[in-house]
Order: sequence, then C-alpha cells, then structure tokens
Amino acid sequence: MIVNGLESLFTPRAVALIGSVREGKLGYELLRQVLAGGYRPVVAVNPKGQGALGVPGSTSIAASGLPIDLAVIASPANTVATILDECGQTGVKAAVIVSSGFGEMGNKAGEEEIKRVAARHGIRIVGPNCAGIINTANRLCPTLETLPPPGHVAIISQSGALAGVLLGWAKRDGLGISKFVSYGNRADVNEVDLLEYLADDPETRVVCVYIETVSDGRAFMAATGRCAAAKPVIVIKAGRGESGQRATLSHTGSLAGSDAVYDAALRQCGAIRVTSAEEMFDLCRALTGLPRLAGRRVAILTNSGGPSILAADRAEALGLDVAEPGPEIQAQLSEFLPAHAALKNPIDLTVEGTEKGYRETLKALFATPVAKPFDAALAINIAPPYLDSMPIARGIIDATRATGKPIVTSFLPEAVTADAVACLRENEVLNFPTPERAVVALANMARLAEHQASPVLFSQNGVSAAPSRSVLPAGPILEPDAMRWLLANGIPTPVFMVAENEDAASGACCRVGFPAVMKVVSPDILHKSEHGGVVVGIKDEAGAREAFRTIRQNAKGARFHGVVVYPQIRNSQEVLIGLSRDPQFGPVVAFGLGGIYTEVLADVGLRIAPVDHAEACAMIRSIRGYRILAGARGQKPVDLHALADVVARISELPFEYPELAELDLNPVFASPAGAVAGDVRIIRGEPWSSRNVA
Amino acid sequence: MIVNGLESLFTPRAVALIGSVREGKLGYELLRQVLAGGYRPVVAVNPKGQGALGVPGSTSIAASGLPIDLAVIASPANTVATILDECGQTGVKAAVIVSSGFGEMGNKAGEEEIKRVAARHGIRIVGPNCAGIINTANRLCPTLETLPPPGHVAIISQSGALAGVLLGWAKRDGLGISKFVSYGNRADVNEVDLLEYLADDPETRVVCVYIETVSDGRAFMAATGRCAAAKPVIVIKAGRGESGQRATLSHTGSLAGSDAVYDAALRQCGAIRVTSAEEMFDLCRALTGLPRLAGRRVAILTNSGGPSILAADRAEALGLDVAEPGPEIQAQLSEFLPAHAALKNPIDLTVEGTEKGYRETLKALFATPVAKPFDAALAINIAPPYLDSMPIARGIIDATRATGKPIVTSFLPEAVTADAVACLRENEVLNFPTPERAVVALANMARLAEHQASPVLFSQNGVSAAPSRSVLPAGPILEPDAMRWLLANGIPTPVFMVAENEDAASGACCRVGFPAVMKVVSPDILHKSEHGGVVVGIKDEAGAREAFRTIRQNAKGARFHGVVVYPQIRNSQEVLIGLSRDPQFGPVVAFGLGGIYTEVLADVGLRIAPVDHAEACAMIRSIRGYRILAGARGQKPVDLHALADVVARISELPFEYPELAELDLNPVFASPAGAVAGDVRIIRGEPWSSRNVA
Repeated sequence: MIVNGLESLFTPRAVALIGSVREGKLGYELLRQVLAGGYRPVVAVNPKGQGALGVPGSTSIAASGLPIDLAVIASPANTVATILDECGQTGVKAAVIVSSGFGEMGNKAGEEEIKRVAARHGIRIVGPNCAGIINTANRLCPTLETLPPPGHVAIISQSGALAGVLLGWAKRDGLGISKFVSYGNRADVNEVDLLEYLADDPETRVVCVYIETVSDGRAFMAATGRCAAAKPVIVIKAGRGESGQRATLSHTGSLAGSDAVYDAALRQCGAIRVTSAEEMFDLCRALTGLPRLAGRRVAILTNSGGPSILAADRAEALGLDVAEPGPEIQAQLSEFLPAHAALKNPIDLTVEGTEKGYRETLKALFATPVAKPFDAALAINIAPPYLDSMPIARGIIDATRATGKPIVTSFLPEAVTADAVACLRENEVLNFPTPERAVVALANMARLAEHQASPVLFSQNGVSAAPSRSVLPAGPILEPDAMRWLLANGIPTPVFMVAENEDAASGACCRVGFPAVMKVVSPDILHKSEHGGVVVGIKDEAGAREAFRTIRQNAKGARFHGVVVYPQIRNSQEVLIGLSRDPQFGPVVAFGLGGIYTEVLADVGLRIAPVDHAEACAMIRSIRGYRILAGARGQKPVDLHALADVVARISELPFEYPELAELDLNPVFASPAGAVAGDVRIIRGEPWSSRNVA
Repeated sequence: MIVNGLESLFTPRAVALIGSVREGKLGYELLRQVLAGGYRPVVAVNPKGQGALGVPGSTSIAASGLPIDLAVIASPANTVATILDECGQTGVKAAVIVSSGFGEMGNKAGEEEIKRVAARHGIRIVGPNCAGIINTANRLCPTLETLPPPGHVAIISQSGALAGVLLGWAKRDGLGISKFVSYGNRADVNEVDLLEYLADDPETRVVCVYIETVSDGRAFMAATGRCAAAKPVIVIKAGRGESGQRATLSHTGSLAGSDAVYDAALRQCGAIRVTSAEEMFDLCRALTGLPRLAGRRVAILTNSGGPSILAADRAEALGLDVAEPGPEIQAQLSEFLPAHAALKNPIDLTVEGTEKGYRETLKALFATPVAKPFDAALAINIAPPYLDSMPIARGIIDATRATGKPIVTSFLPEAVTADAVACLRENEVLNFPTPERAVVALANMARLAEHQASPVLFSQNGVSAAPSRSVLPAGPILEPDAMRWLLANGIPTPVFMVAENEDAASGACCRVGFPAVMKVVSPDILHKSEHGGVVVGIKDEAGAREAFRTIRQNAKGARFHGVVVYPQIRNSQEVLIGLSRDPQFGPVVAFGLGGIYTEVLADVGLRIAPVDHAEACAMIRSIRGYRILAGARGQKPVDLHALADVVARISELPFEYPELAELDLNPVFASPAGAVAGDVRIIRGEPWSSRNVA
C-alpha cells in the first residue's frame, strides 16, 4: 500500500482559491464552478482580500482562519512560487496550479522553482497549466471543465480538453464520475501517482486514462497493472501516427517503433486500449450500466434488415460471434413469433415487431437452456415516423429486468424515437446512438472480460531497478564467442567447432556431420555472406577443404581468426528473435518469421521484457504467419514450447547483462525437435537500468 | 441514353393511393405523408370510395377523373394483381407497391403474378414490400419514412430502414435530398434501372446506394460506372461477415469470396465504398457542402492538444498527409500568432486562440504561395464552459468565405458550443460531431477526388454477353497440351519438349539446357510432385537419364505419356495468377505471391475480369508483398509490365473460351527479363455468359 499524499488533494478540510476573482478572470470562473459544485468551505485569497459570488475574501491563507489543505492557484506564473511558499508555511498540503506560463511556454526555470518550493514544504502539486480536478464524493470541483454527475468513473488526462469532452458527454448522458484530474505539465503528481491512488479508491470502479507520453514506462506498467487487477483501466495513447506506423521495419531496433511498444505495454499490464474519446465514453457507459460479459456470443434482435446486417458485419469484424441460435432457442421463438420473422442472427421481427415480440424473444434467448448460451444482446429499433416505439422500449425494459443480462439498444432515427429513448434511459437500459457504437462497446466489454479471466499481468519478477552486474564477453564479440555466451546462458545452439586451418576445418566438418556450413571468423567482416564468408551445403571432406580455401581467399586483407563450422540444419523454419531498448520502456523483445515477413510484411510480435513462458507462447501465436509454424501446408508443427523457452530466456538477459543494448538471433531454426540459434549479433550500449530510461 | 420508363414514377401527372385510408392503416399514414410533402393532385381509391384528410375518395381510378400516372398500392397482397390489372386498363404507368406478403414471406407465386400483370400492361413496379419513394423536386412523397428537405442527394436502398435513418439525419441536419427509392423485393425496378436513371437526373449530384445483393453483377458495374463518371456514387454493401472474411483461402476459387469480389467490383466501377450509414451521411454532407479536394494534405487547427492529436492519428491512419507547414507559412503565422502557439500540424493556438487567430491562420494556410499547398483544413474548438465560441465560429466563417477552400469544423462539447454550431450551420460551414468524423469525411473526399482524377472505369470492351465460341483442348488436358494452349493464346511459357523414352528425354534436356526440370505426363497423376513425378536440378545427360527412369518407375500403374522437360528458371520470383467464377460477377482474376503468402497471409489482389494493362499493374501493386517484386532486399525488380501483360491476357480468356471455369498459373516465374508460366491447371465448367450468372 503506497501512501502518496493525495488525500489532501481530493478531500481537503478547506480550500483557498488564490488569484484575482474579478469578473472575467480565470479565478472568477473557477470560483463559480466550485460554488456550482457545492463544496464548502472556500475562501478567495488575493492581495486586496476581495471576495466574489458570496465567497469571503482574505489577503492571506493565514488570515482566512480556515484549515486550508488545498490551494487552487490561478495567479500569474511569476507569483506562484511565492504563493506556494506561503502555502507551505501555513500547512497547505496540496496545490492545483491552473496558471500557465511554465514549461509549456519554455519557462523551465519557473517550473523547476515551483517544484523546489513545493518539495521543500512537502506540498503535492497538480499542474501547472492544468484544467483542475473534480471529486464528486465531496462535491469538490475546482476545474474549468463541465461538472458531471457523481458516480464511479475516474478520468485522469494529460489533455484537459479531451477530458472536457468526456465530462460534457457525461453530463449529457448521465454518466457518473468519481474523480477527474487534469495533470497538465505534471511537475509533481503524474499518471503513476494517480493510478496508484485510484487502484484503492472505493468510489472508483472504472479508470480512464488519456496519455501522450508517460514519465516512466515501467512504473506506469506496474501502476496500471495493479489498478487493472482491481478495476477496468481504459487507455487512450495519442500520437500513434508519427511513430509505429511510419517506422521502417528493417531491423529489430526500429521494429520497436514506439506506438507498437505502447500497444504491447498496455496489453501486458491489462489495460484496454481504445482510440477515440467516443469509444472510451461508450465503454464507460457499458461498464457502469451492464453486467459483465461472459463471452463473445452476441444476439442481434431487430425490426429491420439493413442496420442490423451492418451491425452484424461490424460485430464479426471485431471478433464477436454472431452465432445462429441453436434449435432449442429457435423452437422456443417459433412458438410466439410470426412465420415471416427470421430466426437466424440477426433475429428480424420485421417492421411488425411488437412489445411482446421483443420481450419474449430476449427472454427466450437467455432463458432457454442451451450448451452455448448468448452472452449479450443488441436490440435494434428503426422506426418509421408512424410507429410508436414506446411498446418496443417497454418490452426490452421488461426483458432486461427479467433476465439480468447485458442487453443494449439502438433506437433510430432520433427524432422519431426520442420519447422511447428517454424511457429506456429512465429504466437504466443503455441506448447507443448507432448500432455500430453499441457493437464496439460490447466487443470492448468482451475484451475486458477476457483480460480479467486470464490476467496477463506484467511481471518484473527477478527484475530489479539496477540489473545484476554480469558482463558480456570483452572486445568485439566474434561469432564463436557469441555462440558460447548463448550456450552459457541457456540458449540452445547447434554443435559448432572452430578451425584455423584447412585440415582442422575438414576435420571439424567430419565431426559436426555433412552437409555442413562454414563461416569466416574475423573482427573485420560484419556481413559475412556479402563478403563470400559463408559456404553452405558442404557434402564431403573435399568440399570442406575447398570451402576453407574459398573463405580464406575472400577474407584477404582482413584479420582472419579461422572458420566456424556447423551441421546444416534442415527441415526447420527460420524465425527471428530480437532484443532492443525503447526510450520509454527499456528492453523490448521481438519475434517474427524474419526476412521478408518481417521487413516487407511487418509481421512481428513485440513485448516489454521480460516475458514468461505463457506470454512468450501468446506472442508467438500473435503473428499473422503463425500458421506456418503450426503446420500449414502439411508440414509438422514446430515445437512451440521450445521456441517460447528461447524467447522467454532471451527476454531476461538485459536484466542480467545491463550493457546488452541489442541482440538479434537471426535465424533461429525452429523445428518439431526444438529451436536452436543459427546466428547472433550482440550490440553493447550504456548499462541499462529502469532509472536511466528517458 | 436508356429510356427505362421511370419518368412516370417520379413525375406523374396525378397519383392514386390505393388501399384503406382508415386511421391507423398504412394507407392513411401514406396519405398523410403525401399531403405533408405537398404533392397534388391525389385521390384515394378504395372499394367504399372513402376519402381522408381532405383528399377526395373514389371507388376506381377511372371514376376519379384524374390523369393517374402513378398508383401507390397499400392494399392486402391478394388484391394487388387485380388492382394492377385495373391500373393497366386505365393507363397507369407506374406503381409503388408498399404492401408486403410476397416473396419475402415465401409467396413467390403472388410476386410472379404481379410481375406478369405489370409486364402485360407495361407498368413499372417499385416493390413490393418497400418503403416508398420521394421526389423532392415535385414534392412527391409516398413513403413511410421521414420527409427530408429538398436538395441534390439521391438514396436508393434495398433496406427501407437504413434509408429511413439517413432521411431522419438529413432532416435533422438539413441535408438536401433529390430522390429516394426503397425498392423492396425489386420485382421489377432494381438498382440498375435506378442508377441508369440517376446518372442523367439533373437534380441529383450525389448518389447513395445500399445493397445486400445485386441482381446482375456486370449490369450493376456498367450502370454504376456510367453513373460514377457523372457524379459521386457512394455504396454500402452489407453482409461482409458471412463471406470474404471467413472464407478459407486455400485456392483461387475460394479467394473469390464474395465480399472481396464486391470490393473489387465497386472499386473497378468507380464507386466509393463505405461501411456505415454514418460514414455515408457524413460524406454526403461533405460532397454537397465543400469544394472538391485537390489532394491529401490536411491542416488541423486547434485550441487544444488531445482531440487534435487523435484527429491527426486518425487522419494519418486513413492516408491523409498531416504535413508540417512549410517555412513560408510558418513565417506568416509567426507574424500574428503568440509565441506559445505550436506552428506544426496540428497548429495549436492553445485555449487562448482568438477569432483573429483562427481567421488569419486559415487564410495564411491557403493564401501563402508554397510549392505544396494544403488541400483542406479541419478547425477544432474544444471549449471549456466559460469560453464563448462565437468569435471562433466567426473567424472560421470569414476565412471560409475569403479562401473558398474545403474547411470543416468540430466544436465540442455540444452543450457549450451549441450557439456557435448553429451559427456555423447558418453560414454553411460544415461542423462534424467529432474531429474523427470530420477526418473520415475528408479522407473519403480525397479518395473520391483520386477516383475522379483517374477514373478506373470497368471496361467490358470486347466482352459480349455471349462469349465467343472457341473451345478448350478436348479430353483431360495434359500439361504439354495446356502449355501449348497458353502459348497459342499469347501467354509466355518457357521452352519445353515432350519425350516418351529415355533417349528422347536425355536429348530434350540437352536441347532446353541444363540445369533442367522433368515432369511426368499422365492423365492419372494430378499431383505430380507428391507422386514422385517431378525432378529438378538435372545437371547433365546422366542426370537426365536417371531422372527419366525414376519418374517412369514412380508412375508405375498409371497411364504414362512420357515426360515434359523445361530449363530450370533461376533468379525469378514465383507468383500466382488465377481465374475463377463468382456467382454474382462471373469471371474474376486473382494475383498473389502464391504459397504461404496466399494461403496463410491472404495477400491477394482480385479484379472482375477483364482488366486492361493499367488495371493489372494497379492490381499487382495492391498486394502487401509487392515490395518483394519491386526489389526488396537488394534484388532487381521484376518486369512489372510483362507480368501485367500476362494478368491482363489471362483475364480475357473466359470471354473467348466460355467453358473455362478455373485457371491456375502457379507458379508464374517473374524476373527482370519477363514472366513465364511454370505450371498450369485448367478446369472446365458450364459455358459462361453474363446471362447465366446467378
């Protein structure tokens, strides 16, 4: 249990609003919002001791006579440090700094100064340059954004405006909010502090996070993981375009394009990533308004073809199962539905669909005992102007009460169905503006249920902030040394031998077996194939001698340390396993089929290292080309578990060898008999620790 | 110019509403809508001669004394044939049959009967089981759906409900509609008739089409293509899920999963495919409310970070170019914007963005002379509750007028910006409910501009409804015969020779050159490799003799027609070219890299055959793996034009050989020197013509 001192921020005994409260000033707007929210006691502190809107004024915090825990500061940037100092002297414990004019405008020194003053007094700062906070439990609303109804969704946001949109919609649709924090420049309180606080906040049942960057990737994952274990965490990570999608994919380093890394990180810590405010808002409504989904089987009930077919298309595209009802359910339905109703899925009652039709169909869908029951239903009503939608709404409300199942609706057009939609809302049935939005919300609910059923929690077991101090082989690492190092660290390699002359090379080939492969060993030759330093398919002793002479000849002018000889690996599938360092998250492990699959088709699985065996399996299975490994085209499947062992083991290495910056095993030969590294490239860097990640 | 007799449907001299007009009946609702629309003269025809809502009644059309061109029929199904007969006798030229109870309920005979009666009298039927029609030009609205304002968007829909949603939104947002037709069971008038009519309709500038199936794939393509050459055609094709995405992709036949074929067909005839009513509606607003986009460069102007970054992410994901403004524009902007404004893209004026800031920025974006000007702008305003958005709206309105450029807005939250949004609407500036929806509309506008700049029109040149009567080689087609047939039809093959004994085989290998490839020729051996019927890498005469004996031995028990010998093709890339028949569209041509790329990665280009050289090039370039052909990994690029020639020529063959059902060229060897067919499989079927496509 981490005590991070945010109690005074959210539940202060009294609040001071510091800054001018003249009409038209930010301070005035903030005060008006605080009053509208209903929190008391509040005092306005400014040089003239001016009050406003019925709130008393004071020339200082001390003179106010109130036990001020929280200062809300809206005065000019150059006054903030002095104000914080006064706050500290009078026992203020937290400050929300709405004022701008700090780091975001290049005034880094000013921001450092307020951090120093706050740290000296132990004051926790939200901001500067933020849009304020909300705690609906005590009606505390020092913010410039829309005041939402109280409830159980928390919003923490690096963008005040994005949160403002969500809060506006929350007010419109009655989505209850527990807490809101716009943390602006995050001079002190950041997303990690807030996630840790919200994990234990009993008022909060769903956490929404908008981020553009995180201050510490691994701390963010740990906090998100802890929070996600307790309640759903929904994340928007903005700024995709500049990164992952445009990155060229020619080597492991650039595979770790940062958006793909964020994607992996969010999945690994159990967050649900969404891509728009609308998707986030709809999922919040679903999470607070519906029971959990047990699976992906969704029934679509409708009185019209077109919109329901489009909803089914979208549902299937999102991985929901729009399964045909089994014979038991169809038999049930045919007892009360007219003959022209379609009993498949979508279940189409036609424009003649009635209150009873909707009610009894929904009840039959959930009440009929079947092997694979439906997990949710979407009831669509597209009403022509002459149709009264109220009976349909009533039928759905009754069925929702009777079954207790996740049933959502979409009634259209708005003007024709307004009364019925209001009735649904009063009766706590969730209506979505389009069937597609309902389907997206259900699909996200299903994703979340799967997360919760088998939490894929990021584990840093055995990973300390300072990695252990083993060292890589010294000097430029030649292939035989690198292969020995792999073996010593538990990564299987083929048998190999080093030979410095023709006789030894020929003997080595006999020992490893024909056909054999021979490669040059030279600190000067990086790209061995391109310099004639590799001979494959060596069939006999004569061939071995010829190969040695060729390689020796081609290496003329370079330092020559002999050759390394392997048996040629046949009947295997070449794959790639790589390690690289991400500036936000540190070591990242990559898996792909290598070659064209990786470079041209960008078919790569990524995870923040380390991964365990199960996660390594999931990662291998996640690539599009997995079927090639699983035995497409009549091949035997490769040994997935052996391959996953290599991936998992590789992912641990950066924590044992802190100066390991990049590692490419390319190829790894995967076969039904196991997985062995065929070649390896090691790149050193500055020793890594979670402290020096940007 | 096709005269298809729809004039009487849309511009009748007088209308009879046939069926009961008692309150609560469909006829009553229809009459009310017709009156609300304002069309006159109308008469209600029913056995009692009952009028309603001020409209006179009559017991028959003849007795009404009006020149009735259009009958709107809402009487029970079993009365419709008799009514149509009476209609025919009194000179009625068109009928909208709203009544249901025909094919959709299994009453095929009833539907056939009304078709017969209508055909006898030359009456054009819309329906039965339809939601009616609208022509806003003469205020004719016999429909059960919402009545929209007049304008230039036509909607033709296989789903009345889907169109009803669009019409509801059109009324809400003031989108003007020219014509609407719900064609129901399409007993007579279908999507092809309507597309042909709308292509020449001067009131219609944008055509929206919702289809689930088409009655004749090639006629649909021809009509859509003609229409799309004159005005934008936006299509929703519903029912994706059951088909393309789930189809297994193991051979060319199933590659032509019908959704992928529809996708290809729509692209080939110049339609813009969208996937939801919302996307269609937004694009209609953009097309009727904005000038054309000249390209994909979009500027995003904002007063807040988060929502604009998400908009930029979406824009980039959709292929828009959110380019940084050039130095000329940035210099211009810095003259009037404050120092803390971000001049990149998104251009962020911060929450202090003013009327002048928005106006002058938009003007500078479009007025500053630069090499690559912006093609459109999205102006975002996310307003906290205290902010008055009216000045920002005014700034944008001024700039839109001054520049005449495609500028769209997104103002949020709704409650805070309602006045400003109303002001934008009054001044004909398009505001979208979210920045993402604005971006999707702009991306679709850009797609459309590209279609129009280089129309990819489906050509059936040289393709007659009855293909020419050439015949395939008789009997089971052995490889040498198939290869000769390819050669005779202009498809390059390698040199090849047939040999029936060992001496001849050895000689043939010498003639074609070493290394050589030898394959068995036997009507009993389909899968040659699996039966030991192929030897590759034959290096010399001895090898050739050994290969022949091996193949001969392996073919024991099968009829043996000798071997076919080829030179081994090296330094080439294997690709696949296939032909199959789609039940809706007939011959379809497929191109892919073959093997795992096709089977596992489903990376295939499809087109309705035939394609010309340019379209074949586009098709080859469209696959994800194209970079492999274009010279990835230091290879020389293959000869794209030679390959496209083969694809184009293959695509013509089904029209010369009507019984050619499937053709697989797998592999085709593509190299910098050209493209040759390496193997071929021919499957005969029922002779094809566009008449016997389902």
